[in-house]
Amino acid sequence: MTYFGLYALQHRGQESAGIITWDGQTIREQRGMGLVADVFEERHLGHQLKGSVAMGHIRYSTTGASLIRNAQPFKVTYKGINLALAHNGNLVNTISLREELENQGTIFQTTMDSEVIMHLVAKYMNGGTPEEAIAKACSRIQGSYSLLFMVDQKLIAVRDPWGFRPLSLGRVGDAYVLASETCAFDLLEAEYLRCLDPGEMLVIEDGRMMSHRYMEPAEKQSSCIFELIYFARPDSLVFDQEVYNARKSMGKILAQECPVEGDFVMPFPDSGVYAAVGYAQESGLPFEACMIRNHYVGRTFIQPTQGMRDFSVRVKLNPVKSMIKGKRVVIVEDSIVRGTTIRTRVKQLRELGAKEIHMRVSCPPIRYPCYYGIDFSSKGELIAANHSVADIGRYLGLDSLHYITIGGLLKAVRGPENFCLACFNGAYPVLPDGGIGKLSLECC
Amino acid sequence: MTYFGLYALQHRGQESAGIITWDGQTIREQRGMGLVADVFEERHLGHQLKGSVAMGHIRYSTTGASLIRNAQPFKVTYKGINLALAHNGNLVNTISLREELENQGTIFQTTMDSEVIMHLVAKYMNGGTPEEAIAKACSRIQGSYSLLFMVDQKLIAVRDPWGFRPLSLGRVGDAYVLASETCAFDLLEAEYLRCLDPGEMLVIEDGRMMSHRYMEPAEKQSSCIFELIYFARPDSLVFDQEVYNARKSMGKILAQECPVEGDFVMPFPDSGVYAAVGYAQESGLPFEACMIRNHYVGRTFIQPTQGMRDFSVRVKLNPVKSMIKGKRVVIVEDSIVRGTTIRTRVKQLRELGAKEIHMRVSCPPIRYPCYYGIDFSSKGELIAANHSVADIGRYLGLDSLHYITIGGLLKAVRGPENFCLACFNGAYPVLPDGGIGKLSLECC
Amino acid sequence: MTYFGLYALQHRGQESAGIITWDGQTIREQRGMGLVADVFEERHLGHQLKGSVAMGHIRYSTTGASLIRNAQPFKVTYKGINLALAHNGNLVNTISLREELENQGTIFQTTMDSEVIMHLVAKYMNGGTPEEAIAKACSRIQGSYSLLFMVDQKLIAVRDPWGFRPLSLGRVGDAYVLASETCAFDLLEAEYLRCLDPGEMLVIEDGRMMSHRYMEPAEKQSSCIFELIYFARPDSLVFDQEVYNARKSMGKILAQECPVEGDFVMPFPDSGVYAAVGYAQESGLPFEACMIRNHYVGRTFIQPTQGMRDFSVRVKLNPVKSMIKGKRVVIVEDSIVRGTTIRTRVKQLRELGAKEIHMRVSCPPIRYPCYYGIDFSSKGELIAANHSVADIGRYLGLDSLHYITIGGLLKAVRGPENFCLACFNGAYPVLPDGGIGKLSLECC
Amino acid sequence: MTYFGLYALQHRGQESAGIITWDGQTIREQRGMGLVADVFEERHLGHQLKGSVAMGHIRYSTTGASLIRNAQPFKVTYKGINLALAHNGNLVNTISLREELENQGTIFQTTMDSEVIMHLVAKYMNGGTPEEAIAKACSRIQGSYSLLFMVDQKLIAVRDPWGFRPLSLGRVGDAYVLASETCAFDLLEAEYLRCLDPGEMLVIEDGRMMSHRYMEPAEKQSSCIFELIYFARPDSLVFDQEVYNARKSMGKILAQECPVEGDFVMPFPDSGVYAAVGYAQESGLPFEACMIRNHYVGRTFIQPTQGMRDFSVRVKLNPVKSMIKGKRVVIVEDSIVRGTTIRTRVKQLRELGAKEIHMRVSCPPIRYPCYYGIDFSSKGELIAANHSVADIGRYLGLDSLHYITIGGLLKAVRGPENFCLACFNGAYPVLPDGGIGKLSLECC
Repeated sequence: MTYFGLYALQHRGQESAGIITWDGQTIREQRGMGLVADVFEERHLGHQLKGSVAMGHIRYSTTGASLIRNAQPFKVTYKGINLALAHNGNLVNTISLREELENQGTIFQTTMDSEVIMHLVAKYMNGGTPEEAIAKACSRIQGSYSLLFMVDQKLIAVRDPWGFRPLSLGRVGDAYVLASETCAFDLLEAEYLRCLDPGEMLVIEDGRMMSHRYMEPAEKQSSCIFELIYFARPDSLVFDQEVYNARKSMGKILAQECPVEGDFVMPFPDSGVYAAVGYAQESGLPFEACMIRNHYVGRTFIQPTQGMRDFSVRVKLNPVKSMIKGKRVVIVEDSIVRGTTIRTRVKQLRELGAKEIHMRVSCPPIRYPCYYGIDFSSKGELIAANHSVADIGRYLGLDSLHYITIGGLLKAVRGPENFCLACFNGAYPVLPDGGIGKLSLECC
Repeated sequence: MTYFGLYALQHRGQESAGIITWDGQTIREQRGMGLVADVFEERHLGHQLKGSVAMGHIRYSTTGASLIRNAQPFKVTYKGINLALAHNGNLVNTISLREELENQGTIFQTTMDSEVIMHLVAKYMNGGTPEEAIAKACSRIQGSYSLLFMVDQKLIAVRDPWGFRPLSLGRVGDAYVLASETCAFDLLEAEYLRCLDPGEMLVIEDGRMMSHRYMEPAEKQSSCIFELIYFARPDSLVFDQEVYNARKSMGKILAQECPVEGDFVMPFPDSGVYAAVGYAQESGLPFEACMIRNHYVGRTFIQPTQGMRDFSVRVKLNPVKSMIKGKRVVIVEDSIVRGTTIRTRVKQLRELGAKEIHMRVSCPPIRYPCYYGIDFSSKGELIAANHSVADIGRYLGLDSLHYITIGGLLKAVRGPENFCLACFNGAYPVLPDGGIGKLSLECC
Repeated sequence: MTYFGLYALQHRGQESAGIITWDGQTIREQRGMGLVADVFEERHLGHQLKGSVAMGHIRYSTTGASLIRNAQPFKVTYKGINLALAHNGNLVNTISLREELENQGTIFQTTMDSEVIMHLVAKYMNGGTPEEAIAKACSRIQGSYSLLFMVDQKLIAVRDPWGFRPLSLGRVGDAYVLASETCAFDLLEAEYLRCLDPGEMLVIEDGRMMSHRYMEPAEKQSSCIFELIYFARPDSLVFDQEVYNARKSMGKILAQECPVEGDFVMPFPDSGVYAAVGYAQESGLPFEACMIRNHYVGRTFIQPTQGMRDFSVRVKLNPVKSMIKGKRVVIVEDSIVRGTTIRTRVKQLRELGAKEIHMRVSCPPIRYPCYYGIDFSSKGELIAANHSVADIGRYLGLDSLHYITIGGLLKAVRGPENFCLACFNGAYPVLPDGGIGKLSLECC
Repeated sequence: MTYFGLYALQHRGQESAGIITWDGQTIREQRGMGLVADVFEERHLGHQLKGSVAMGHIRYSTTGASLIRNAQPFKVTYKGINLALAHNGNLVNTISLREELENQGTIFQTTMDSEVIMHLVAKYMNGGTPEEAIAKACSRIQGSYSLLFMVDQKLIAVRDPWGFRPLSLGRVGDAYVLASETCAFDLLEAEYLRCLDPGEMLVIEDGRMMSHRYMEPAEKQSSCIFELIYFARPDSLVFDQEVYNARKSMGKILAQECPVEGDFVMPFPDSGVYAAVGYAQESGLPFEACMIRNHYVGRTFIQPTQGMRDFSVRVKLNPVKSMIKGKRVVIVEDSIVRGTTIRTRVKQLRELGAKEIHMRVSCPPIRYPCYYGIDFSSKGELIAANHSVADIGRYLGLDSLHYITIGGLLKAVRGPENFCLACFNGAYPVLPDGGIGKLSLECC
């Protein structure tokens, strides 16, 4: 079940995958670089990863280099106890905590912020229960963390007091299951129960579950709105909200905020398709699916050594020429980070004879980096950080460009006051060590 | 360029791939089982497959077992001449031709019908030009064949007199290119020139091209309409027709022929999406994309050993629950062959609380096998061969089921008299050896 | 059993391996490039290669390029009959036979001389039994051939009339087994029965065996003496002779023919070890094993990019320094082909302070190429073809160099009149097409 | 150079391999399970493992499970310093040290005793130099250890005060090199300088080397005599002694201690060959090499599912039948641990008709486990621990069996008082935690 859960959540990270199981006596693990489908083989699931308690992780590297050492779950032993940890999120006070630990003679074997958590837990376990140790360790760390610990046969889940990242609880038969998104539950035919509260700790052992408030929730909850805009799967619930409907609403609000005369609305699949559906319904323009995806473009293909311009962009999507020529095309996108790929696609549409090209974006301009687990930086510089919307429109080669407003966006979600908008407005709920822009672990 | 062309055409066959090149002195080849991305490595394209003339093939096994022996292009030597052949299509008089050749002492090293063509060409080359030999060989074979020969540095393309399978000519810079579908040209930024005529032979050598009518076209042209319905990529032209527009038209005609009261229209992606777009536009019902695809489901995944019902179907698509519950769902499909997968999906929608489920199919009932290269049989029995539409609807668990009519379908294409409709009405343009239902090569 | 037989015979060829089985209804095959251990997996032996009749082949390319196409057993179908062939040896009239066959319209799919045999057999089977067809085909071919055919469930073995290559018959339980060398029988705990006669055909079917003289033996038998000198495994019988004893005798005769004052005798392992043992025993000099082999040098290792001279030679063997310094070393080798490696090793011994270095070779100078299956040419030019023994000794940096005489060599074997000595004296028992030095298939 | 050094030392461990380099700024590593040839690829050596300082390790698991986590060199960071460790040997007070460290809140990520060393070094570095910290850490650990540390650009080598394991210093050009055996130097064409002293620390930085006595040597030096008997390569020096000559001397002394009437002397290659050469020279019996090795038996082969007795033993060596029949065979072995394989081989010789079979062993009976790095236990129970020599001879099916005496063995080495003989006489130089027989890390 853990394997299938990871399979369903693969979109959240493709760098590495791992599963750890406990069969009552022995802890077993399999971790590797790459996709779930590559890391696990039949023999792992059939024989090797036996046990009645299991946890898995897929990694989308935000801190720490891309190394097998950094694949999670992270496992250690301490006084004969097996401790394992899966961490979704990103700490912001790692540097000062590492310094403090190193002054006590602690060595680090990975570059993950999660290793800091584990050292803290071990220190605090000297004379306490695992639950107490985890609560104390959490009181020391800052940033985003949805954590799942395995302490021999016991599972302990905690969600940070800001509620940055999602974490959902479900039930399949007699067993409790936890996952970042409910699409993992659907595949297992598990029943969705609820989202964990900020500052909540769940302890699961022998089929029983107990809930504790291990820490006061932050004054202002700060769930990541980008999960709803882009990151989560559209068939999931996150933060108890339906992602599909949120995205369609964003498209509808976008159509109200910035309508345009066009022949049809289309997305660049698969990004933006749900907002485009909403935009089309609200605007009354026909929805078309005339950018065709090559379903066989895998993770790698051999680049032409010369001559074929923009090959890696064009190989993935090809426009239907007859649909573009002479048309006023309205494109709905769910976000613009760097803009390079979009620019190539717009240019291609121009060359095919599009009469007008308008773009509507269901996410406000992203102007600030995220310190809580969304790796915008991996996509290069944020174009909106340094350029006006007009400049961006010119750069992309568009006839018009409009973004949804922050206000409009918040109309599309429930509990608008509970979301972190730092990437739009720079209002960081908790500041990183040493201030903004100083976060870097690899230097250590 | 051949590699990228195959990449673009991967949907036409996933069993094996191969490329053969001629560098003025040596013929080079790389063939292997699996996808283009798996068969070729950087070293093949960079160093090993040098040359100024090249041809490639991807195989979708309709005759012949799944073996590396059967990977094409098929290469032989004859009197110091290198002959290579790529064959799209399926012969129907292989058995009698093999018998005739074996009576002359010919041995067969593969189970492909294409080997028969090569033996005939060699026999007829004894005293003639390659062009004459190919023309004579083609006068002996029956069935569907778009062929590309390499005879040392010369490329010779022929299309069968019925025009069953597509074959298009393009130009990139000084070079001529040929491909089954124009999406291969788009990736190369090649200019599309035209479709070959039934009975036409093109000879390309030293950058010059000559066209011959090597055989009278059949009285009635018989292009495969299933290419337009399902098989070709929607961004391609085949038979000089735009696939995307044809599919959207089928959806529109379907909406006229069998409207339904529903809350929205949706496809099971990606099959049926273009007809669904047309249906939605014509009917005025909203288009929704609420079956979510897991983009990381690769060719293989580990099956759960027990318990999870219909796993391999459910892992690929997951419905958005809130969109289904209490709704009247109209699903547009592009074809129903066996129906098993559809049945599972309909059941899943029912369990999520769909109020009504209606299906509209943009292809008439498929009642007869295809002998010309579409492998319906690989998908199991044709449900429409033995069951009424009403029965099928009940089996699939639908509230209503309607197929497009043959007449309606023909309204969506240009030159309706030029298409083979045998899979719908059993009117085979050319009969197989030994009559219908007797075709089998593997027994030899 | 076939797999283990190939395993035991791996020294005879490392390019490709294959097994074909017949289970009463279906022929099954697995062929691949590389060693037996790489080509076959558990699933092949456990499930896929079922059957009661089997044959295998390992290829050491003497004609034909190194391609999977050329991996044997070579399998075709002819009139519903499955024909497979494993060929040990090398034909010398392939060019004229190919020409004749091509004039009848035959195409060639491989570059192996074995394909010619198969085409001939098929031609002659038209109206005859397989046995007759094989006999007729053999009357047309010239050169060395130990052949094993599978004709559906029947196995037919033939040995050429000159008796160039070995072929032995054994029995394990109720089953007959055939192999080039008896070391394959030892692994199977099979009983050795006898060597096939030149011109003999064995037919094995349903556990029964019949022997025919399908052709008159050549006037002068011409078994390959290099099998006894170097090629066969020392624990084998070939041509009904014990290889180990033959090699030790060669060493003893060498000690009589050219004694030397030395401190000890040593081989460069593992070549020459048996002759060195014989030399030591006859001369009374101590035998030492002071060139140490690195047992972990596999087929490939990463070459140093700069600086380390002669790395690929030195990595395999390292001398024991203290044994070499100040010593008069007598080295016994079993053959010198090109001499490059030997030269490097001698230089290394000199650098370690050897006082005198004498070499004794248990094979006369190889002056002429072999057309019957030993690929001297793959090892580069034959140094003895163009240089005197004195010159070779100087080139190798030796204090003295002596080869065994042809007369001395013949004293070490039984039936000295029955051996081919062409590589020493140019007396070819059967001349190649177009004369000496013209043999080349790859041009076709 | 590190890669080639590991290549030369592969016989010392086949479980995992790793290299760590320092290029002045970045530490780079590649570690993996399996042989050196499998773990490293061209890209690692060419591009990835750049640097002017490097260290490598091959692992032969004596403590710790067979996991990639446990592959060395073991690398951590501490206060911005990169620390790496390669450890040859085995600690005996790991359990008490782990307990002490865990009481301070230390977690363990591997099951290797080497991790304990690293934690100690880090604790002591808080306020001291790396050299002081390593010396302090070494004062806490007991057992066998030849250690190589990399501390950013600095290399620090230490040898334990007992001198259990070898560690040699060499020079190639301007660079110092360190290795367990000198065969690694030969491949690099490095000059051998000397063996490190027990209790010596070498510090190498910027091409300069300094030697310190970091600890008083133990009263009685305890070098492992089994290195000379069996473990080291015969072309190496270890403990400043020539392995080849030591083994030949053991054979000669064995011939003096227990002569026998026989037809010839032979080893079971490759174990015992050097002692057999010595035995033959001293006894005057002829040396024969009539057990033939299959050079293509790799690490794995497919086991026959039924019927073939003792297959895995027989596939490796095959006797020359004619040499065995009716002969009085004298076999020289270098050690008997469990005896199972020897028993099978003796039985095989009997079945081939050997008249008498005598065995002489150049190692005294091994009666006690080794706690310092030789994993006898992996070979099963020690037969000599519980059985008399007469019983062992009967079990092995021999006509006579004699072992070298401890006194005889010591005559074959220089400085006989400096060797550990605990596996023969139970006189352990340093006792394990909790006493003999209690050593176990996996339980933690």
